[in-house]
This record gives sequence, structure tokens and C-alpha cells, in this order.
Amino acid sequence: MRKIAVFIGNRANYGSIKSVMRALKERDDVKLQTIVGASALLDRFGSIASVIEADGFQVDMTFHSHIEGGTPVTMAKTTGLSLIDTAMIFSNLKPNIVVAVGDRYEVMAIAVAAAYMNIVLAHTMGGEVSGTIDESIRHAITKLAHIHLVATKDARKRIIRMGEDPAHVHAVGCPRIDLVAEELKKDSRTALQGLFERGGGVGPTFDLSKPFLLVSQHPVTTEFESSRKQIESTLHALQKIGMNAIMLWPNPDAGSDDISAGIRSFREKHRPKWLHLFRNLPLSDYFHLMNTTACMVGNSSSAIREGAYIGTPAVNIGTRQTSRPTGVNIIHADCDQGAIVKAIRRQLAAGKRRMNPIYGDGRAGERIARILATTDVGIQKRIMY
Amino acid sequence: MRKIAVFIGNRANYGSIKSVMRALKERDDVKLQTIVGASALLDRFGSIASVIEADGFQVDMTFHSHIEGGTPVTMAKTTGLSLIDTAMIFSNLKPNIVVAVGDRYEVMAIAVAAAYMNIVLAHTMGGEVSGTIDESIRHAITKLAHIHLVATKDARKRIIRMGEDPAHVHAVGCPRIDLVAEELKKDSRTALQGLFERGGGVGPTFDLSKPFLLVSQHPVTTEFESSRKQIESTLHALQKIGMNAIMLWPNPDAGSDDISAGIRSFREKHRPKWLHLFRNLPLSDYFHLMNTTACMVGNSSSAIREGAYIGTPAVNIGTRQTSRPTGVNIIHADCDQGAIVKAIRRQLAAGKRRMNPIYGDGRAGERIARILATTDVGIQKRIMY
Amino acid sequence: MRKIAVFIGNRANYGSIKSVMRALKERDDVKLQTIVGASALLDRFGSIASVIEADGFQVDMTFHSHIEGGTPVTMAKTTGLSLIDTAMIFSNLKPNIVVAVGDRYEVMAIAVAAAYMNIVLAHTMGGEVSGTIDESIRHAITKLAHIHLVATKDARKRIIRMGEDPAHVHAVGCPRIDLVAEELKKDSRTALQGLFERGGGVGPTFDLSKPFLLVSQHPVTTEFESSRKQIESTLHALQKIGMNAIMLWPNPDAGSDDISAGIRSFREKHRPKWLHLFRNLPLSDYFHLMNTTACMVGNSSSAIREGAYIGTPAVNIGTRQTSRPTGVNIIHADCDQGAIVKAIRRQLAAGKRRMNPIYGDGRAGERIARILATTDVGIQKRIMY
Amino acid sequence: MRKIAVFIGNRANYGSIKSVMRALKERDDVKLQTIVGASALLDRFGSIASVIEADGFQVDMTFHSHIEGGTPVTMAKTTGLSLIDTAMIFSNLKPNIVVAVGDRYEVMAIAVAAAYMNIVLAHTMGGEVSGTIDESIRHAITKLAHIHLVATKDARKRIIRMGEDPAHVHAVGCPRIDLVAEELKKDSRTALQGLFERGGGVGPTFDLSKPFLLVSQHPVTTEFESSRKQIESTLHALQKIGMNAIMLWPNPDAGSDDISAGIRSFREKHRPKWLHLFRNLPLSDYFHLMNTTACMVGNSSSAIREGAYIGTPAVNIGTRQTSRPTGVNIIHADCDQGAIVKAIRRQLAAGKRRMNPIYGDGRAGERIARILATTDVGIQKRIMY
Repeated sequence: MRKIAVFIGNRANYGSIKSVMRALKERDDVKLQTIVGASALLDRFGSIASVIEADGFQVDMTFHSHIEGGTPVTMAKTTGLSLIDTAMIFSNLKPNIVVAVGDRYEVMAIAVAAAYMNIVLAHTMGGEVSGTIDESIRHAITKLAHIHLVATKDARKRIIRMGEDPAHVHAVGCPRIDLVAEELKKDSRTALQGLFERGGGVGPTFDLSKPFLLVSQHPVTTEFESSRKQIESTLHALQKIGMNAIMLWPNPDAGSDDISAGIRSFREKHRPKWLHLFRNLPLSDYFHLMNTTACMVGNSSSAIREGAYIGTPAVNIGTRQTSRPTGVNIIHADCDQGAIVKAIRRQLAAGKRRMNPIYGDGRAGERIARILATTDVGIQKRIMY
Repeated sequence: MRKIAVFIGNRANYGSIKSVMRALKERDDVKLQTIVGASALLDRFGSIASVIEADGFQVDMTFHSHIEGGTPVTMAKTTGLSLIDTAMIFSNLKPNIVVAVGDRYEVMAIAVAAAYMNIVLAHTMGGEVSGTIDESIRHAITKLAHIHLVATKDARKRIIRMGEDPAHVHAVGCPRIDLVAEELKKDSRTALQGLFERGGGVGPTFDLSKPFLLVSQHPVTTEFESSRKQIESTLHALQKIGMNAIMLWPNPDAGSDDISAGIRSFREKHRPKWLHLFRNLPLSDYFHLMNTTACMVGNSSSAIREGAYIGTPAVNIGTRQTSRPTGVNIIHADCDQGAIVKAIRRQLAAGKRRMNPIYGDGRAGERIARILATTDVGIQKRIMY
Repeated sequence: MRKIAVFIGNRANYGSIKSVMRALKERDDVKLQTIVGASALLDRFGSIASVIEADGFQVDMTFHSHIEGGTPVTMAKTTGLSLIDTAMIFSNLKPNIVVAVGDRYEVMAIAVAAAYMNIVLAHTMGGEVSGTIDESIRHAITKLAHIHLVATKDARKRIIRMGEDPAHVHAVGCPRIDLVAEELKKDSRTALQGLFERGGGVGPTFDLSKPFLLVSQHPVTTEFESSRKQIESTLHALQKIGMNAIMLWPNPDAGSDDISAGIRSFREKHRPKWLHLFRNLPLSDYFHLMNTTACMVGNSSSAIREGAYIGTPAVNIGTRQTSRPTGVNIIHADCDQGAIVKAIRRQLAAGKRRMNPIYGDGRAGERIARILATTDVGIQKRIMY
Repeated sequence: MRKIAVFIGNRANYGSIKSVMRALKERDDVKLQTIVGASALLDRFGSIASVIEADGFQVDMTFHSHIEGGTPVTMAKTTGLSLIDTAMIFSNLKPNIVVAVGDRYEVMAIAVAAAYMNIVLAHTMGGEVSGTIDESIRHAITKLAHIHLVATKDARKRIIRMGEDPAHVHAVGCPRIDLVAEELKKDSRTALQGLFERGGGVGPTFDLSKPFLLVSQHPVTTEFESSRKQIESTLHALQKIGMNAIMLWPNPDAGSDDISAGIRSFREKHRPKWLHLFRNLPLSDYFHLMNTTACMVGNSSSAIREGAYIGTPAVNIGTRQTSRPTGVNIIHADCDQGAIVKAIRRQLAAGKRRMNPIYGDGRAGERIARILATTDVGIQKRIMY
């Protein structure tokens, strides 16, 4: 039976592949293997392994490869160690296909491991355009992948232009939207009851029936030295707006320590009554927050992707998402306190948008599972020109 | 002053970059750093570090990262370990630009290290098309590189089609041809005197003024399980031709142990009077052998690249060089004893060809050095469509 | 000239070897090489590389090898990665002698690297007895070391009983005491002026001329699952005492994240007016705090070692320092709120003790430098029975 | 149920633990886990994984960690990579006890991994004395191990003197002798029929009913630069004796490439009619060869250990086995052609000795299995003085 290994390298990965895993598990012509590693195992960023098991999946292998430091050199070494670890895992699990999600360093590692080990590599979220080092890594992974499972028609065209075989480039939608579609069948107000109790975190709590902001800001790896300054612009803008805000700690890229330090220092100094921080939230809570927030603020891709489907008003700050297609729900702002304040105010005035599913219609998981279970693809790649 | 690190990962690398190193060393606006590692340090394949120092370059850092086994899993792990090692080296040497040559796994490693460490990556020999895993790796490296220094106009077009910025794709020729051009100013007969004494190796020696074959066959990594059978086809074809032959041991890809075992077993069994094997030869000797051989046999890229410049009649066996542009000096043959015999006989009848420098005119080194010393390129890449 | 490499793996290491480095640098018969890596480079625990350079030493090589997680598996993998990194460093720096300090995992790594690379290993702080995994590691390093530079006569006897050659076991005192001796020539009140401004940290500041506690508690690696509970006992005991307290964040062993989380949560919940936390302090400040504190609390070895020399009243909590010889300045307490409170009150009543230099007389550095510069020792070890 | 992981790091390991594995498998109170890695997977030295499976054991996890080069730096890095790999394996297999055999670098790696991961480490073959780096490593592993399963009473005494708890030091005999005892119930002449056909190898074959020598010589790691010279002394001595000889290729320590090169060069030059080389032999064949050889020659420990039990006349060359207790079957010789010739001649005159089981009585496996299944030992070690 065809063995399909899915790799979860961080908390965001899991939400982007869970509906695929579910669809694979329901098929009787494939065996699902689950590998969890890199930052997905770090308590600091929310260990996802137990969540995966609670969802009914078996975790077949775990590995720890995240080298502390949050600097360029530790990102590179983390990729190297992830490659060593996943090569060993693949040689023991012997999958026929490896599924890699996105463009972070763990994904680069398993793409290289699969390439050298003559394992078919299926890649989701390729063909998109963004800022940061993710941009280079994403396209490099595309050149190593055999099956491309992309979110948009735009992405499909781009990958084919890069010389990939059109027969293996599939515009299936983003599997993360599947989870959104399913979750939002529930009532958001009800779903969010008790959020502060179960979510933990630090800072004051507040009444979620009153307007609140949802904030998520990550370092821009090619500008990682200014991370501290960037988060400070945002925090001071939020201070000025004065609306209650729920904020998430950053992911562990180069610069994340500076962002965390910036947040801590701001809290020490200003003791903001309006700011509650979560380390990590279940996706369900996050989607309901996106569904009810007055405005999202930051540079997370979720504002653009799930936000388009949900219609969430959002202010996208800085260069991190540059060139990613955005729906009408997005207003861009530079990393500048005044610009951010202005953009938030415009969104507060505009309010929620209509659903516009440019990143998927909620059925990506089953499409992808069918392709993985049935496609035959040669291991030797050839550029198409 | 701009620091430019050149990385030598195996013996073939050095010949492909030496003229660039010389040109960089002669400039007073850059500082050359030399890093030697991976299989370049293995005695088994000919340690190149001492050769580099004898040529007047300082070796700034060495590393050992070649995991023994010659299987897909060890190639992947070797890449991971090379990445860990080079990340550390870059964090200590702090180069502004890293120059990577070709498409082997060590190069993939340093490309990823440079990408994450915000170091400009200059890549030579990109944009070409071939068989094996090198094909995927080469294009993946292109997507990580900032400056592309390619051998042919064809390669330049292909890289631009892949979405790279035309301003940073330079068709400069292959620096290896520079060495050929320089070396062949000497008389080959004279240069080859005493070859067997200084080259060592095993097997009988013979008179190089009589016609001889030059053989070099490497494993095809995506077919590595049939490596043993492939080398046996070649050896039996050579046996049938019966002409004296100089052969080189294979490079350390997956499958190389099988090729070595095949050669050893053939020697044990047939005790061929016509076969002399060298572990490693100075490039100068190799070029003179190419200049005087009756026919090259195998699947080495040198027959196609340097061979086009020299006019060496050559039989290219199997899929390893599929899709690489070839000059009139090449006849292709399947991995089949009969086909190989027939192709060799055709080449022996046809004789030496005229010079046809499609891979370079002998001045690549100075062009590349000038580009490296003077180009300004942003660290953030963006696909051009 | 004899090359002597000193390895600094964490902030505590540096204080324990600085006087040796100074003495080596002053000699003209040896060349000092400085290697800084592992947790010594992490901002989170205070990067020591810049401090070392500010002290006039050249940092010859740095490496990042600290795998995030703070769990047993990441400690083991960190040791492995440190071993890979230091092997590469040694092969480039080619030291004749490597000096390793203490018993943490980075030290195990370089001990193994030196052993396999036929480099003489000099080890300080061997032969002592304590709790935690450090106990096993310390003695294992002793069995790999060629020159033993121990703090006490007791330690010397123990190492000889383990089968080491008495000719190479030297009771020289702890070099850290050298720094204490030198620093305490100054007036502590004056030296500590402006501590809160320059030391940063979080929490309220207070008047250091009034009695204050000095707290430093690290995880016990063999009990790492109860780290959270252990720090809570201490914090609640301190709450009960109610005296101003200066506390240091824990070192990055397995369990340190739990301790940090415990401290953060305690601060969130109780907002203690009496507690100021520093990430890292210059040793000079630390020694003056030890010289003026009403009582030290926790499980740091400094209370026992430097404390004996200074006469600092101290409460040593739990098993981490079990079996380490202690002077009259120490009262032991179990990890229990009541026991800790009681012990602190006894120390507050007893007050400062007299100097009792069982761990050194302040001249270890020059003794060690002389031994390193002049000893000849064979690389092949043999157990003496 | 108690999970006991046995680690096989090279071909020699397996013979030294197989009877223990068999006895563990037969018990119903423990679960046996088998881990195979490092040089045990290298074809060049004989992959042992398939042999283990053919013997009816399940191989639970494999890893490749042998860095090519055979130099001190690659031995150190191999240890580091083995440590990274085994830490990951332990975190997935979660054994209660890990059993490590002997004193090679893979064993150092798993000892450190187990120590940091709070796993009970059981160590066989500790407490012995020999030359080379193995000497330091063996005693360092002892200081990390919780249960000591030693071959001789002498070894037990030495380990207790090193400060280990006598309650956990068991003189059980060497499990390798169990295999000898079992195998030699068969008739050696019959067992050896067809050896050359099934064993492969290179060189002429001969009639094993005529007197023959059995040769096995490994590099001495602390003298690895003279490996070439050492093997040449032996080969020339054998040439002088002129008796048929069966020789084994060396194990992959630093210097093994030089020994292999020395052997290859000697064969090229002298084309010895009397020399047959095997890469690897089944232990059964090896024991029968030891039972029928006229004399063993080299520096393998098997001459001393199994040789004592069998009564094999043997010449032990050089320092590799210095200080290992030897039975009456051994004559020592320096690495000098004349000395070796003389010693061989004395042994040929003396003939076979009587059985003298100082390294075990053939029942170690069941004793060890019982101890592993039933002993309770605290994870926190403490030196006993």
C-alpha cells in the first residue's frame, strides 16, 4: 500500500494540512504516516504533537532540531539538523510520498531529504509570492517537488512558467480554508465563551462582545535587525487606538526574540490595560476571533488567506506579505505608527466584508488526498524547456 | 573590503573555479576566502586541499562532512551535515558573497546556508539540463542564488524563464575552459611523459603514443541500483575493443561503491592487460589525455564541455548527460555492450574534431571576478512574474 | 609555540577560567586560542562573546549548538552538535592543549572531540561530587582528560583513586576565586552604585544599603519534571520572608523553561514588590552582591565555592549540590517552603562568616598557566591499576 | 513491560551481544528493541542488519552516521552525529534500559545520549585495560553506566576501584564466548567446507586441511600515522613464513584506509600466492578458522579472548592489546618483521593449547538477560567515595 508521510514542522503547518490528513486517513488505499518535528515540539511556541494525537492521528516519529538563537546562523543550522533527522526518519519509515507544507526552513530540509532519497515530494502552497527569505525557499522547494498542490490559479500559472510539468501542478485551494469553512458553521460568540480561561496567556481579559483588535506580527527575516523597532511601531499605534486587543507571540524566525523582547518591555513600561497575549490558540478559537474582530493588525498571512474567505477587515503592515494577492478585506500600511493608526481607523469605519474565496472553497483536503493516492509520477524531474 | 568566499566541495569543483580564484586574487578590491570540505578532503577521491595550497591560495577553513555509504540516505545526511558546518564557517568568516560551483549536494548545502544567512550567493554552471538528481538540485540552487554566472547563452535564457532577474544572469562561459585553453598551449606528448610514474594507480602501463581510450563513468543517482550492471556493460565493451585504456575511479555519489566493486571484480576475474586505473589525475594531465586520446568513453560531463573546446571524439553512455547541449564531437550510446562497442568504433573511424567553444572561450575567470567585485545586488529576491 | 585553546560554553564558564586566560596571555611561551559556543552565545542567557573581547581577548571561533527545548533529548542532541562543531574547530585551530571547564554538556562534547583527535585535554573542577547528571559527566570527563586542575585536595584524592596518574593531578584552587579576591579589594557599596540602571532586568528596584536576599536557582536535571514545583516553593518562602530580593534567571538545562515559566507566572499573579530579576550580571557585581547580601538562597554552586571565601551566609536548597564540601557559611534546606523559610531566618540571625578559602586562595590562574605551558604528557592514557 | 534496547554499532558488536539478545527474546517479562547503526550498516565492512534479521530479530531502527575519512576529526564527528541520531531514536523508542557493548565511538555516543536522557545504561566489556583511545573511552563509558556486565573478575575489581557501586558490577563472562561454545560443538573441518565460495573475497584459495595462518590487524588510533608501516611489517613477515594465510580487512578506525592501502599495494606488487582476503566472515566460520589455524597473527582481541577459550596459538603484534590479560596461547611481538617471524615460528612449534576460559564459560547471555530484566537501579549515580 502506498505510504504517504505528512510532516508537521510548526503549529501553523498543522492547520494547513489537517483536512488532507483526515481525507487520507479515510481512504483505504493509502497508509498515512505522521512526522512531527522542529519547532512543532517546542512548548514555547505550543507543542502540537498532543493536539494531533487528540485529533485521532498517530504520531509515527518526532524529532527536535530547533537550534536556539533566532539568528540567521541558527536558522541555517536548524535546517541542516532537520535534514539529518528527516533523512533518518525517511530511511526508517520508507514513505512513497512525502507531503511538505509551505516554505519554512523545516520544509526546505525535508524537500532536500526527499529529493536525494528518491521519494516523491508533494508540496502545498507553492507558486505564491511574498517577501522575506520564504520567497527564495518556496521557489527552491518547487524545483525539488514532483507534485504541486497550490492554492490559487495564479500560483499554478507561476509554477508552470518556472518549468514544472503542468500535468502535476494542481490548483486545489488551501486546505486551511477547509477548517475555516467547517468551523464557521458554529456560532462564533458561543464558541469563544471561556476563551481567556482555557487559552491562558498574560495580561488583562475583556468582554469579547465589545469591539476588539486581533494582532499577530512576525519578524521579517531579511530585515531581522529592525524587528524590535517594527513591533514597537505597532504597539504604539495600538496604544493610540486604545481598543481592546488580543495578540499572539511571534513564530521562531530570526528576529522573534527581538519581537518578544519588544512586547515584554512594552508591557513592563506601559502596563497596557487593553492587551492580552496568547502563546498559542486552537485554530478554532483563532477563526472565530477572525470572524468577530473589529480589525486584524500585523503581518500574518492568515489575514490575507482565511481573511478573504471570512471577510475580516485587516491592516497588513510592512513588507512581509508583499506581492501576495489580497482580497478587498485588506488595507496595507508601512511600519510606521501614524500609517498604522490611520489604516486601522479606516478599517473600523468600513466594517466586515463579504466572503471572497480566492484561496479555496473548503474542499482542498479531499482533492489533495485523491491526487496523492492515485497520481503516478516519475522520480526523475526534467525542466519543461 | 568585499570578502568573497569560494567553496571547493570536490576535486572537480576546483578545476571549475580555479581561474576565477586566480582573477579574484589578482584584484585589490576584494579579499578571497577559500573553504574546502565535503569529499574534497577524502584521500580516497584525492585530497585537493594541498593542491590548492600548492597553487598559491590560502585555505581558510576545512570541514569533513561526507557520510560514508554512497546511498540515498547518506547523500541526504551529508547535505545536512555540510549545511551545519558551512553555516558555522560563514558565521566566522563573514563573507559578503559566497561562490558555489555546480550542482552536487555540498553546493545545495551552502546555497541554503547562504540564503538563510543573508549572504549574496553567486552560482556558476546553473541553467543547464541533465539527468539524475543534479537536475532538480541545480534549478533549486538557481532559485536561491542572487548572481548567476552561466556557461552558455542557452542556460542564460532558461534561468530568465525561471523568473530570475535578467540583470543578474551573466553568460560568461565555463571557467574550466580557461584552464584547458591555458594548458593546451603546451605540447601534450611532452606534458604526458612520466604520467604513470607520477600518477600511480593500478594496472599495467603502456605507450601513450599508441592509440588509447580515456574512460570515466559515474553512477546515475536516480538509477543507483543498476550502477554495477552499467559499469559491467562498459568494461565488457572495452574488453571487446581491446585498445589500451586509462580509466578513472568514480566520484562519491550513491552507487559509487557498486561501480568501484564492479571494476575491482572485473580486474580480479579478467586481469585486463589493457586497463590502467587512476584515483585522481591533475587536471593538466587530464586535459592532455583528452587532447590525445583516440576516444573518450563514459558519462563524464568533461567529454561534452571541455571535449567540445578540444574536439575530443567521445562516446557518451546512458542518461547521465541527457539534454546537455553537445557539440559534434559526441556520439551517444545506451548502457548496452553492443551499442557501446559500435559507437566507439564509429569514433575511432571519425577521429579528432575541430575546436567548437560552445561552453566558453577561455576568459570566464576574469569576467566573473569583475562581476563579483563590482555588482550590487539586493539580498531580497523576487520572482520576476 | 604551544597552542592552548580555552573553551567558553556558558556565562559561568568564563568567570571560572578568566584568570587562567589572563595568565596564559601574559606568557610568551604559549599562544592562547579562545573558542566561544553553545549557550554562551545566547542573548537569552547573556552573550558572553562581547564581554570576552571587551576584556582584551581575541575570540578565535564561535559556534551555535544549543538545541531549544530544555528537555533530556535536546540536552543530548546539543552535546552531539557541540561535538560536531568543536571537532571542526579543533581541526582548523589545531591546538596542542584544550582546556575544558567543569561538567556541563558542552564540556562533555569537547572532551570527546579532544580525546579522539589526540589533543591533550586539561580539565578544571574535576573530582568534585554533586547531584544531577553533572555527577556522571564530570567523572566521565576525568577519564578522558590528561591534566587535572582541581580546586581542592579532596578532589585530587578522588581523582587519583579513580586511576588517574598522580603526576598529572594538581590541586591548584578554583580560578573563579582569583576574580573574587581581586574584585573584593574594592568597596562593595561603591561598586554596586547604579546596579539597577546598568543591569536592566525586570521588577521594582530598591535600596541596596538595606538588607536584601540574593537568589539563584537552577533545575536539577535528574528531577527536571518537578522544576516548576521547586521554584514555587522557593518563591513562596521568599514571599513569606518579605525581604527585598535580587534573583537571577536559571541556566539552560533541562527544566529551565519550567523554572522561567514558574517565575513569570508568580510575578503575574503576585506582582511582588520585593523581587527584581536580572538576566545576567557582570561577575564583579555578583561578587559584591555576595559580599553584602543578608543571605543567599537557591542551589547555585557559587554560594558554596565563592561563598566560602567571602563568608556569605547561604541557604542551599535541595539535592543539586549534595556531597559538595561546604564551609560554615552554608545551611541546607529541603525543597519545601517551611524548611526554606526556617533556614533563611537562621542565616539572617547568624550573619556574615569569616573567610575560609577551601576552594582556592586567589592564585589558581598563574599556577594553571604554568602547568599548561610546561607540562609534557603522553597522549595515550593508562589506568593506574 | 520493561523495554531493553540493544545497540549494534559494528559487525564485532553483534557477536558480542547476540547470546544476550537471544536470552532477552526468550523472556516474557521484557521487550527487546534492536538498533543498528554507525559502521554496522556499511557494505564496505559488511552490513550486519540483514544478518540480524535472518537470525530472527526485528531491527527497530537504523541510522547512518559514519563520516568518511578514517582520521581523528572524522572519528570525533562520527561520535557527534551518532549522538544526535541515537538521541532521536531513544526519544521515539523510549527504552527503559540501553545496552552498550564495548568501547568504540558509537558506544561513547549512546552512553552520553542515555546519560542525558535519564535512561539506565548497561555496559558490557568494561573494566578492561588496553592500548589506543579505546582505553580512555571505555573508562569514560563506565563512569556514565549504571549496570556493569564485565567479562572477568579482574575487570570487576577495577570498576569498583573506580568508584562504581559494587552491587551493580557483575562478572558474568563475555557473551561472545557463548557463541564460540555453541559453534564448536560442530566439526570444524565440515563447517569450513565451501568457505571460499560463500565467503567471496579476493586472492587465491587453498586447501584448509593444510596448515594456514589467520591474520587480522587493525589500526592503533593513537599511532594512526604509522598504520601503513605497521601492516607492511606484518605482510613482509608473512611473506617470509610463506604459509597460506587468510586475512581480514581492518575495521573503520582512523588509519584503516592506510592499512587497506598497504594491503592493496602489497598485493599489486608481490601478487602473493599464499594470501586470501575476506571483507567479512560469519562468526561461525571465524571461530572454526580459529579452531583449526596453525597460528593467529595480528592485533585482534579475538585471539586473546576467544583464543583463550579455544586454545588458539596466536602472535599478538604491537601495542593495541597492551595490558589485556592473556592466556598461555599468546606470544607478543613488536611491530617488526623479524620479531613477528620469530614469534610465529615459536607458535608453529608449540601447537594448539588447552581450553582456558578466563573470558567466560559460555553462559553469559542468560546471566545478563536476567540482570537486565530484574535489576532496579537509581538513575542518579554517585561515586562511592
